[in-house]
Amino acid sequence: MPFALALHGGAGALPASRVPAERIDEMRRDLALALERGREVLARGGSALDAVVAATLVLEDSRVFNAGRGAVLRSDGSARLDASVMSGAGRRAGAVCLVRVAKNPIRLARYVLDQGREVLVAGDDADQLAKDGGLELATPDYFVTDYRREQLDRLTARGAVALDHDEPGASSAPATLPPPGPPAASAPGDAGGTGTEEGQTVGAVALDVHGHVAAATSTGGMTNARPGRVGDSPIIGAGTWACNTTAAVSATGSGEYFVRAAFAHEVHARLRWGGDDLDVATREALALVVGLGGRGGCVAVDLRGRIVTPFTTEAMPRASVTHCSEPRVYVLEPLGAAPALD
Amino acid sequence: MPFALALHGGAGALPASRVPAERIDEMRRDLALALERGREVLARGGSALDAVVAATLVLEDSRVFNAGRGAVLRSDGSARLDASVMSGAGRRAGAVCLVRVAKNPIRLARYVLDQGREVLVAGDDADQLAKDGGLELATPDYFVTDYRREQLDRLTARGAVALDHDEPGASSAPATLPPPGPPAASAPGDAGGTGTEEGQTVGAVALDVHGHVAAATSTGGMTNARPGRVGDSPIIGAGTWACNTTAAVSATGSGEYFVRAAFAHEVHARLRWGGDDLDVATREALALVVGLGGRGGCVAVDLRGRIVTPFTTEAMPRASVTHCSEPRVYVLEPLGAAPALD
Repeated sequence: MPFALALHGGAGALPASRVPAERIDEMRRDLALALERGREVLARGGSALDAVVAATLVLEDSRVFNAGRGAVLRSDGSARLDASVMSGAGRRAGAVCLVRVAKNPIRLARYVLDQGREVLVAGDDADQLAKDGGLELATPDYFVTDYRREQLDRLTARGAVALDHDEPGASSAPATLPPPGPPAASAPGDAGGTGTEEGQTVGAVALDVHGHVAAATSTGGMTNARPGRVGDSPIIGAGTWACNTTAAVSATGSGEYFVRAAFAHEVHARLRWGGDDLDVATREALALVVGLGGRGGCVAVDLRGRIVTPFTTEAMPRASVTHCSEPRVYVLEPLGAAPALD
Repeated sequence: MPFALALHGGAGALPASRVPAERIDEMRRDLALALERGREVLARGGSALDAVVAATLVLEDSRVFNAGRGAVLRSDGSARLDASVMSGAGRRAGAVCLVRVAKNPIRLARYVLDQGREVLVAGDDADQLAKDGGLELATPDYFVTDYRREQLDRLTARGAVALDHDEPGASSAPATLPPPGPPAASAPGDAGGTGTEEGQTVGAVALDVHGHVAAATSTGGMTNARPGRVGDSPIIGAGTWACNTTAAVSATGSGEYFVRAAFAHEVHARLRWGGDDLDVATREALALVVGLGGRGGCVAVDLRGRIVTPFTTEAMPRASVTHCSEPRVYVLEPLGAAPALD
């Protein structure tokens, strides 16, 4: 029986002028490690759900992605973490948002799924759930890296100036959130979580040998965002979707637009009702996001084990492996560089 | 040009043994008032967005629905409020969850939509947004009614016993949330927000004379729920959806199942890709929820002004009016009692 696994490390831009080469190397290394952890699960007959969680855990523990340790910082300097996971078997789902203490938000999301009570738990109460459940905790400082602190400082300075000129009275508003009004595709900073200063949300999708699919997504949101802002990553149907009738999808990008497109469920719907194949379904759903003014990408796997990794940004670190293909890891490579994966 | 407006006051049960007749009368009165407020907007050529917000405001201010004043209480005795609104014109959306101070969560959701920055803002930060935006605030006590206090006391007592027996160690967990494991359609308490002790989430959908649709939903969640639990009401694509290519939908029911079904967007997808009409699309989407183990209902309006109000619970207070039909308000009337509306 076939299996397949694909990961993303966030749609965005990784300009050499700003992102050190060693950071790119770390992304490549940690994506490869995450891929191997997930592959091991699938190769021994484990579930897609276990595989996407195992892979996402590695990416959360990595310092170079915007999830778990190394997450971007909110306008108040804190890291607040969102994650969701969905199993195509029974459409079970779990999600958390604005977590500050649970060391691995994806593990907490999985815990919510396993408990089968809520689907989404927010904030301190989600952290309390982690404590009650005996999950590993961290101090808020654990999540914060110098890289993200400098990123916040830079954005705060730049954002304050921009907003002071553009939007009187809105100086406390985050600088990188989508601007009000009609989309301005070329405006700097309109990419939300995917712009130059952002990105690196992580996600995983898998098909296991039992024919089940699953998806997981984890993020720290957007640099300098309002502390209570929730994007698409913890929203089932927007950032994450899995259904055994169609596919598993994990999205990354300017979250607000992915929510307004119901992106991940739109992919499902196009497969289920529209007769599209996975390639067309994901590209058309991304085109819908672009039409609203957003950008980003996704990884998706269908029931045949076909993987697609489209994105509309400059870069999207990504990786894939199947029962019959070698591991592939791409960080700076453009879309289309690897036909077998892209 | 046609216009149409439909409201719901929550899918659930309203047994005469528990719900006083005067409470039913109040529901009828306040639904009629909300309907008139929304109708006035539409009749003078106002937008569907303005109409659904105007109608929802009345239902939030009412003491007998589970939204704004009179909301159900969480396990800690607090009222925490969720709301969302979406305009089919441009798929703009705004939502808030776990609000405690903003007097009208739907107004705050509309404020988020108008700001055009975030789509979903949570908790204290959402309340801060209400303060910053000059929206009317209330003390937490404003939302709490004796009726809901007694409801919480009754459930806490009953729930604690049930959980002590059924789930060792889970005594702090909410009693009315869906049980883990396979769906048990006839199990008491599995209806989440829609059961005997619950219900009365509110929502509105409208088509305006300009051909735009909009949807709004507002709720206090579930009695005795974990304070940080977020259901489907503030989730764009689950509890609320509007798109000018298809329809506007506001859902009510056991929220977790509606999220796992991506309910409101599923209705959209069936209209857009599946070729269903509104009646089939909403009934099939509800059947999906039922298949997962949930129940509830919705109001929906399509681009022709056709209104449907299906539900799988004993009752769903609802109301509708169009450019060419008189106001209709039903509280205890079963589904099918009013062919023109149902």
